[in-house]
Amino acid sequence: MNQERVLTADRVTGKLHLGHYAGTLKNRVELQHRYDTFIMLADVQALTTHFHQPGLIRTHLREIALDYLAAGIDPERATIFVQSMIPEIAELTQFYSMFVTVNSLRHNPTIKSEAQSGGGDEMYYGFLGYPVSQAADITFCKATIIPVGEDQLPLIELARKVVRRFNELYRPVLTLPRALVGDTPRLVGTDGSAKMSKSLGNAIHLDSSREELELKMRKAVTDPSRVRKGDPGHPEICPVYAYHRCFRPEGAEEIGEECRKGAIGCAECKRRAVETISELLEPMAERRSYYAARPREVDDLLMSGTSQARAIARETMLEVREAMGLDYFAGFSGE
Amino acid sequence: MNQERVLTADRVTGKLHLGHYAGTLKNRVELQHRYDTFIMLADVQALTTHFHQPGLIRTHLREIALDYLAAGIDPERATIFVQSMIPEIAELTQFYSMFVTVNSLRHNPTIKSEAQSGGGDEMYYGFLGYPVSQAADITFCKATIIPVGEDQLPLIELARKVVRRFNELYRPVLTLPRALVGDTPRLVGTDGSAKMSKSLGNAIHLDSSREELELKMRKAVTDPSRVRKGDPGHPEICPVYAYHRCFRPEGAEEIGEECRKGAIGCAECKRRAVETISELLEPMAERRSYYAARPREVDDLLMSGTSQARAIARETMLEVREAMGLDYFAGFSGE
Repeated sequence: MNQERVLTADRVTGKLHLGHYAGTLKNRVELQHRYDTFIMLADVQALTTHFHQPGLIRTHLREIALDYLAAGIDPERATIFVQSMIPEIAELTQFYSMFVTVNSLRHNPTIKSEAQSGGGDEMYYGFLGYPVSQAADITFCKATIIPVGEDQLPLIELARKVVRRFNELYRPVLTLPRALVGDTPRLVGTDGSAKMSKSLGNAIHLDSSREELELKMRKAVTDPSRVRKGDPGHPEICPVYAYHRCFRPEGAEEIGEECRKGAIGCAECKRRAVETISELLEPMAERRSYYAARPREVDDLLMSGTSQARAIARETMLEVREAMGLDYFAGFSGE
Repeated sequence: MNQERVLTADRVTGKLHLGHYAGTLKNRVELQHRYDTFIMLADVQALTTHFHQPGLIRTHLREIALDYLAAGIDPERATIFVQSMIPEIAELTQFYSMFVTVNSLRHNPTIKSEAQSGGGDEMYYGFLGYPVSQAADITFCKATIIPVGEDQLPLIELARKVVRRFNELYRPVLTLPRALVGDTPRLVGTDGSAKMSKSLGNAIHLDSSREELELKMRKAVTDPSRVRKGDPGHPEICPVYAYHRCFRPEGAEEIGEECRKGAIGCAECKRRAVETISELLEPMAERRSYYAARPREVDDLLMSGTSQARAIARETMLEVREAMGLDYFAGFSGE
């Protein structure tokens, strides 16, 4: 195993869907064989937008853990942990916030676009600061590789600035992370929206039953210019075709051709997409049912992962306090 | 002892002077007999302005502890603790920051005036948020009484809003604090500046020797219209007269009269002020030399106070996590 550490995370606001799988989960399942892999259940970050719905976070914490295990994250290889149980992240966030300016956060492209989509100028202080909190997520465990989409690059840039500034102000104890911008396709929703998203109701969840999958697919929009089977289609604007390309790329070319020629109808095309996605989801369902029947085992996995992460957090904090000169009483940690 | 808890704090940026004594320390020495008194060495808050000088914070931590003990804070009565060693404060700060808007901080009168005096629009994120951090300081130990000057009332108002909002969003676990606006005179500096302040070099420190005190007093400005002893003075504009009023009010009236009549010269007036302040500082010097000779005892006091505060912080955090639904694994704290 490579010494490099990968950190990924999901905001704990809802169970995962095919968009997450295509965009990041599939990649993580591969990365866990090559790197020391840390996966964070970002419940504190979820609070930045869902502080008034803590029950929802609580419910989804274990759901998402099941999604991970179902998707093929191997708890023997990857460390899954809960963000809110690492107080060192809050401490680092507070330290870093001393030397990150309000303007650098306000002008961060990711914050800017999320603030706009969130609407309203009544931005919460914690929301504005979540890039600082992310820098703490990354640095407490000295993660070196952060797989992200293009849109998140400004956040990694900010984390790198924090690391450089800290190391220069105090002592070089933090590790500089780098972004791994992968081929992370953004999966289109079943309604044709640019992005599959649980809040838009256009998502196929990883725990979908065959029936749910068929229903979602039946309702999925296709090329509106195809009224009858023989009409020539435009696969590039059809979500169902996007699923073929994403989940069975080797057969997608052919389906696209048949669609363009009017040789395949939407019903048949959807039937094949259901088959393809079922092939993906069935082994997931099997792993899920194993763990779903063993909630104690899942809890143990999360607690053990959190303990591992916490031990690393404590070590980093000792170094950070020493570097900052805040280690007043040798060996005493206030307990 | 009353069940109410008083919290006071000092930013760990320099040793204390007569301004601190008159403004708050004297009051604390009295309060400790009536209330459960918590005194926080606010090193994290000091970082908001001194993050680039951590060595200074380190040096002054023990200096200020000595100032407390010298001034008459009784470690048997008061709990002195170190802010940065209570990670729960950082955690609460993060939670509260989810529902405090950036605008409510920007428009907070205290932040506004401090930002202006700090100059520059490059405000740091941590500085902007220090009222949120103060709400965490106050609430982690469920302090009910916060002695403050008028200028700090908006901070207490914000802390009260945080408490109300938290209790309403989740469950009523936080205690509503109230400000105790005392008769906290702002002591004039020896240069006649409105405020005695170490950064202005116009302060008489609590650890001043007799020689230092005499020197400071000799250099202190007085009414500039008095050239010769017989000239009638204007005591109300003279810092030395302010010291008489503050530290020996019962004799101040008479000195003021003499000054107005030109019956007392500035040298004599200063000599008497030196006597008065010496009477105050001498017993402090005695207590200080006791503790200065016993650094281990001081460290033990700080560690023991911090442990006590930490135990309370842990209890509060359990309640907070439970109220927010973040207590996922009963009895497991990530350790």
